[in-house]
Amino acid sequence: MADNEQNQQWLSYRPDIKVLDCTIRDGGLINQHYFEDGFVKAIYDCNVAAGVDYMELGYKGDKSIYIPTEHGPWKHCDEDTIRRIVGENPSDLKLAVMADADRSDYHNDILAKQDSVIDLIRVACYIHQIPLALDMVKDAADKGYEVMLQLMAISTVQPGELEAALEAASKSDASGVYIVDSFGALYSEQIRKLMNIFKSVLGDCGKEVGIHAHNNQQLAFANTIEAIVCGANRVDATLAGLGRGAGNCPMELLLGFLHNPKYKLRPVLACTQEVLFPLSRKMDWGYSIPYALTGQLNQHPRMAIACRASEAPDDYVAFYDRLMDEYS
Amino acid sequence: MADNEQNQQWLSYRPDIKVLDCTIRDGGLINQHYFEDGFVKAIYDCNVAAGVDYMELGYKGDKSIYIPTEHGPWKHCDEDTIRRIVGENPSDLKLAVMADADRSDYHNDILAKQDSVIDLIRVACYIHQIPLALDMVKDAADKGYEVMLQLMAISTVQPGELEAALEAASKSDASGVYIVDSFGALYSEQIRKLMNIFKSVLGDCGKEVGIHAHNNQQLAFANTIEAIVCGANRVDATLAGLGRGAGNCPMELLLGFLHNPKYKLRPVLACTQEVLFPLSRKMDWGYSIPYALTGQLNQHPRMAIACRASEAPDDYVAFYDRLMDEYS
Repeated sequence: MADNEQNQQWLSYRPDIKVLDCTIRDGGLINQHYFEDGFVKAIYDCNVAAGVDYMELGYKGDKSIYIPTEHGPWKHCDEDTIRRIVGENPSDLKLAVMADADRSDYHNDILAKQDSVIDLIRVACYIHQIPLALDMVKDAADKGYEVMLQLMAISTVQPGELEAALEAASKSDASGVYIVDSFGALYSEQIRKLMNIFKSVLGDCGKEVGIHAHNNQQLAFANTIEAIVCGANRVDATLAGLGRGAGNCPMELLLGFLHNPKYKLRPVLACTQEVLFPLSRKMDWGYSIPYALTGQLNQHPRMAIACRASEAPDDYVAFYDRLMDEYS
Repeated sequence: MADNEQNQQWLSYRPDIKVLDCTIRDGGLINQHYFEDGFVKAIYDCNVAAGVDYMELGYKGDKSIYIPTEHGPWKHCDEDTIRRIVGENPSDLKLAVMADADRSDYHNDILAKQDSVIDLIRVACYIHQIPLALDMVKDAADKGYEVMLQLMAISTVQPGELEAALEAASKSDASGVYIVDSFGALYSEQIRKLMNIFKSVLGDCGKEVGIHAHNNQQLAFANTIEAIVCGANRVDATLAGLGRGAGNCPMELLLGFLHNPKYKLRPVLACTQEVLFPLSRKMDWGYSIPYALTGQLNQHPRMAIACRASEAPDDYVAFYDRLMDEYS
């Protein structure tokens, strides 16, 4: 790339990039989705004021699996629950919900688009669930929604299988596929390699590539901007990085990097300070060494989450020894 | 790069990479270098056990500028101070001190190598101090030390000046030059661009390139590994990321990435837990939004440091408004 061209990138922005705030959805994994209405409304108002493109509210969880009395309202995202916060959503902010493969009664619980204030269905699956996920994509697209496919735990997917999954997705009604680094295990070199694969299969079909990063190794923001540089146009972030375990890419960093004048940083700072900061005193999320260790080993963070919830959240050596034992 | 070659990188390591721990030196900028002997000894023992290559203890600060009664012992790093901790340093860990241009009486305060347990002098300067810094490099090299040049606030240096400074450094006795991102302002794209410039001028002379990153935008580790991928062989880290403002690249992440079997993670975890974690309850360092904002604006973190030390360390909106006023 010519030097001038490279310099120029810093003084321009890509209007195709769309930011999705998944504070409530990913954060709900910490508190069983029991956010109060006022909290959700504050995040919604913040996203509207900040010019964020999408807000993900939670899951369309199957009520026979996730009993409503045992989970907060954002595990199911019933239409009336959402409308209690957003009304008819008289804003440019689009609304999203996530439907997990094998964990959603999608045929019944996802309404026809004309009956819903939801704009985007994000279908989340592991590689072995691709056939089911593609049926979920079709169901949501047929109902009139924009649909995205979230390929979780991507750091554990075998290369041959990845291409096959992307080929299948490229023929689906999904608008794009997300790289989901569920374990926070990927380094920037690996992001570049994955982006090459995703772009080579999806690019010609006009499908977008997205990135959802976790901060186990303090790389959520770095990997997000690396994916952007490599052509990802759909990017996830959360306020104060709220999210399960080590959390996600912090919104304040992402908007600062993007330089698109439609995004406003000040409302994000205000909401972070007034709403997220008080929460951080009651709820544990964000980088800590147990998450770094599971990330380094490309493992699910469940052991680290248990450590952080235990009596000895900062006994790093004992955790390291346990992890090595499990791993050996 | 061929796919196999790229894959292979993850299963090998570069023995040329040398890690320098600057916990005491950079951390000393928070507490006027008043670390107790037991603390410094714990970091020293940790570095020896972890197989870290260098440990930087502090500054060779001019005593007429930095009055000894007003600064801790690690601002001056007198020979007897260092030996009180390390004795004759009967280990493979090499010892370093930093000498700031215009802030060090280097002719007098840096002893001949045969009279010192110090191995490496790191000469730190801003771009306008290059002529002085080169005299400092010569002085230290003539005395028998390994010498490195630290080019601070690199994110503010004009391209033409940078090449000229590197040309001068390439003819000096310095073993290498560090990219010092004092403001934590650089994104990975910029790291790649700087690495290209540094390597193109210094590579043919057999001089090394180093990286010293700050974590204002949660990019200290990301930028460090990006520089490594681009060929940097000298890398700085600190235990628990201790360092001025947003701190530095955390040692536990760097060693996990490097995969060189000579590095041991467990002693780093133990020291972080036993020594750094208690300190974090008394001393403020690490990522927070005020540092992110000065980083985004490529500004010195002094306003953010003042904010974090004020009565309202988490009033991000007020800080943002002050920063915008200053900047306008």
